[in-house]
Amino acid sequence: MGQNKLGRDIPQEFAEQYGVFGGEFEEIKTYQEHSRQINPVKPRDTKLLGSIKEAIEKTGLKDGMTISFHHHFREGDFVMNMVMDTIAEMGIKNISIAPSSIANVHEPLIGHIKNGVVTNITSSGLRDKVGAAISEGIMENPVVIRSHGGRARAIARGDIKIDVAFLGAPSSDAYGNVNGTVGKATCGSLGYAMIDAKYAEQVVIITDYLVDYPNTPISIPQTDVDYVVEVDAIGDPDGIAKGATRFTKNPKELLIAEYASKVITKSPYFKEGFSFQTGTGGASLAVSRFMRETMIKENITADFALGGITNAMVELLEEGLVKKIIDVQDFDHPSGISLGNSENHYEIDANFYASPLSKGAAINQLDVAILSALEIDTDFNVNVITGSDGVIRGASGGHSDTSAACKMSLIISPLVRGRIPTIVEAVNTVVTPGSSVDVVVTEIGIAINPARQDLIEAFKNLDVPQYTIEELQEKAYAIVGVPDKIEYGEKTVALIEYRDGTIIDVVKNV
Amino acid sequence: MGQNKLGRDIPQEFAEQYGVFGGEFEEIKTYQEHSRQINPVKPRDTKLLGSIKEAIEKTGLKDGMTISFHHHFREGDFVMNMVMDTIAEMGIKNISIAPSSIANVHEPLIGHIKNGVVTNITSSGLRDKVGAAISEGIMENPVVIRSHGGRARAIARGDIKIDVAFLGAPSSDAYGNVNGTVGKATCGSLGYAMIDAKYAEQVVIITDYLVDYPNTPISIPQTDVDYVVEVDAIGDPDGIAKGATRFTKNPKELLIAEYASKVITKSPYFKEGFSFQTGTGGASLAVSRFMRETMIKENITADFALGGITNAMVELLEEGLVKKIIDVQDFDHPSGISLGNSENHYEIDANFYASPLSKGAAINQLDVAILSALEIDTDFNVNVITGSDGVIRGASGGHSDTSAACKMSLIISPLVRGRIPTIVEAVNTVVTPGSSVDVVVTEIGIAINPARQDLIEAFKNLDVPQYTIEELQEKAYAIVGVPDKIEYGEKTVALIEYRDGTIIDVVKNV
Repeated sequence: MGQNKLGRDIPQEFAEQYGVFGGEFEEIKTYQEHSRQINPVKPRDTKLLGSIKEAIEKTGLKDGMTISFHHHFREGDFVMNMVMDTIAEMGIKNISIAPSSIANVHEPLIGHIKNGVVTNITSSGLRDKVGAAISEGIMENPVVIRSHGGRARAIARGDIKIDVAFLGAPSSDAYGNVNGTVGKATCGSLGYAMIDAKYAEQVVIITDYLVDYPNTPISIPQTDVDYVVEVDAIGDPDGIAKGATRFTKNPKELLIAEYASKVITKSPYFKEGFSFQTGTGGASLAVSRFMRETMIKENITADFALGGITNAMVELLEEGLVKKIIDVQDFDHPSGISLGNSENHYEIDANFYASPLSKGAAINQLDVAILSALEIDTDFNVNVITGSDGVIRGASGGHSDTSAACKMSLIISPLVRGRIPTIVEAVNTVVTPGSSVDVVVTEIGIAINPARQDLIEAFKNLDVPQYTIEELQEKAYAIVGVPDKIEYGEKTVALIEYRDGTIIDVVKNV
Repeated sequence: MGQNKLGRDIPQEFAEQYGVFGGEFEEIKTYQEHSRQINPVKPRDTKLLGSIKEAIEKTGLKDGMTISFHHHFREGDFVMNMVMDTIAEMGIKNISIAPSSIANVHEPLIGHIKNGVVTNITSSGLRDKVGAAISEGIMENPVVIRSHGGRARAIARGDIKIDVAFLGAPSSDAYGNVNGTVGKATCGSLGYAMIDAKYAEQVVIITDYLVDYPNTPISIPQTDVDYVVEVDAIGDPDGIAKGATRFTKNPKELLIAEYASKVITKSPYFKEGFSFQTGTGGASLAVSRFMRETMIKENITADFALGGITNAMVELLEEGLVKKIIDVQDFDHPSGISLGNSENHYEIDANFYASPLSKGAAINQLDVAILSALEIDTDFNVNVITGSDGVIRGASGGHSDTSAACKMSLIISPLVRGRIPTIVEAVNTVVTPGSSVDVVVTEIGIAINPARQDLIEAFKNLDVPQYTIEELQEKAYAIVGVPDKIEYGEKTVALIEYRDGTIIDVVKNV
């Protein structure tokens, strides 16, 4: 057992295998990019196969290999279950899966885990029943939780070696030119899938919308694709936008949003040409609305907005308040449509978005990021992965990436949720280290990280109540009491990888 | 000395180093893709440097390294000369240069070769004075002539290892997002440069048009770029379009074009959804015009047109006769503008265009290609690199790539040029093997490769005079006499690499 820089206990075997977190930029070093073996495709060769089963046979997929999927269809995804069911039927076992994330709809994974088909998982997150099952300890090997930038890094550096990527495509031609803006189940950006396509040994495109050659625009090019399979349906369009949030009317969320907006618009970063990323929660979307008013009043436009994109962002683009959107993922239909229609709405891959080991990620150019939290502790560490009961139910996403890279990160969160405090003495699980967090915004006021004396100075006259983080924690405990300690077991069920590949925390079974 | 499959003598050392040509698809084998070492760029790092000299220093460029350039500015390029002059001033020697091609404007290279700054060259072609100097034997090591697809293959497989790519950019932001459609010296597609950016160890963007972050559309992404340098001018916009051809009024060229058009429109490939590539010569452009008439008359549209793009192609796109253009290079201003404006005009890289080792190049999907020739022999071998005097003055381009991959290749050429026969007993230099050539079209009629009995059958009733290739050669000789034999020296001044990396021919000094 060793401790990392944050004092988190990391079991020896994982500490040795991955290294332990030692600071945000300690492991940013020159490296050799991973390379794939390429099977050239000759004139007259066809890539179009009759079924997923045939594709699996053609790739030579066998026990012990690693496969990947993307999560752009979110709760509407049919692809992972179709492929995993076929793999199971074919009797292939001991598969490592490396989807960019896992949704509720992937509950059948539990059966595949129990049957020995799936023995390793890496993902941004785990939801509901799959998360609960993992937290119960159904897997022998811990799930590796990776941020979106960390996953791109892991693939580019060969930490994840994908043998076969099975990538759902809203449209494709028979040679494998793919985009996400044309088709029956459009998801907009394919930013996470583009990385898999570039580095996987073999790539199988699964589509329900086959078009004439050449399909354009091209998110995944034919030069990254080995096989194409047409199926009846790759996803449920409504599921793609499921969970997408409308503007909130919750007074607490509106107050948080108003405070966050004030922090941003009174910060040194709010000037002509600034840039920002918002999340998808109710309060987060409301921040855009408040910022919009100030942008109009002060005649300030943003050079770009970034990240997972929602309709709120698209409206700012259409109004000319945001000049460009760079888009790794869309959370609703209007943003996917905008990506297809507007030349100022541009698709990027996960490496471009957030990898700490790329030749410069977009988040490095970002002024302000608005991020959410399940818990924040008095060291400003943030948990976005485990609930107050210690069960895995969230996703790492771009949280640790964006907060590390941007100039000012805001964590917005209610002080308490029901009978659960959000600001705590120590988070259950650290996903983002406190050193990346600049301002915590709650409905009763804000706390600025003392490491940011420049911001404390800049916000001296801000008309938002200010507290220390300890004061916020005490106020939270005063309302709902001291939270019960979670009784964890001895088994490590998940490793929380920091974006650089080291272990920042582990999750034990409950 | 060994002989390759075409009976060409290949000096032993080169035969051993590269292998000798053994057939179009003999060397298309699985391989490990070349990978680069990446220096990650952290938040707050800047890529913007003050001068080309500073960039050269930052990259650590030193004696013996390989650098590359792109040729999209054609005769208007300032970049290669600026960089080479700076390298020479800094006292760096023994540099290998790997530009995608070399133009007349690069004549200062001769001085750099003589001074030992440049000791190795690979290029698609050599023009005028540089070609003449190379043919005289001023270099110790032979120039390696590579096709556009062959160069992409060589870079992707690591046969060319680029230490630093110096890439001229019509527009860039300070983080290195580049396109060729915005700026002062726009060149349209950056298809050849995109490959260098992807595989070079380090990439320096040289631009005269720095824009706000993020520059879009993105042809070369920030994730492929290490440094950005702003200079006064990267190129002469007029030089970019220099040599671009207008529609011919030459009756001989019009006759060739008419015959070629008949061959195409009476072929089994001419049907709804067909595809084609034309060249940029006068006759080649005229083919488009004749084809256009038949397309309108027979109500046939093409799914796509490919290759180096000219205004002739853009007009067909705008008329709806061609549904999409996929564009690796633009030969005039209107085509660059169309790339910037039309969503059906799409930029691709050289690997996508023509590499024999990619997971499927666009040329593999091509029905008909119209190509030119300096010489064609009775084995249907084609020379596009050396003149009748044996001096290097042409370029390999996409000739051998396209003709090998498409379903029907037409070589269009006058029977004689002045006092020089075009159809000969044996070409001076083989660039494209006869096995890739289907129909030779001259102003007196056509010759179909006997290997294509299906075409001989299909064209039985074609109202174009038909000859054997030997008959065409005899008619050419009857007009201008038997050509004098060239007196070559003993020194190998150029290796003609086939697209797969083997040596198809060598050029000796004259």
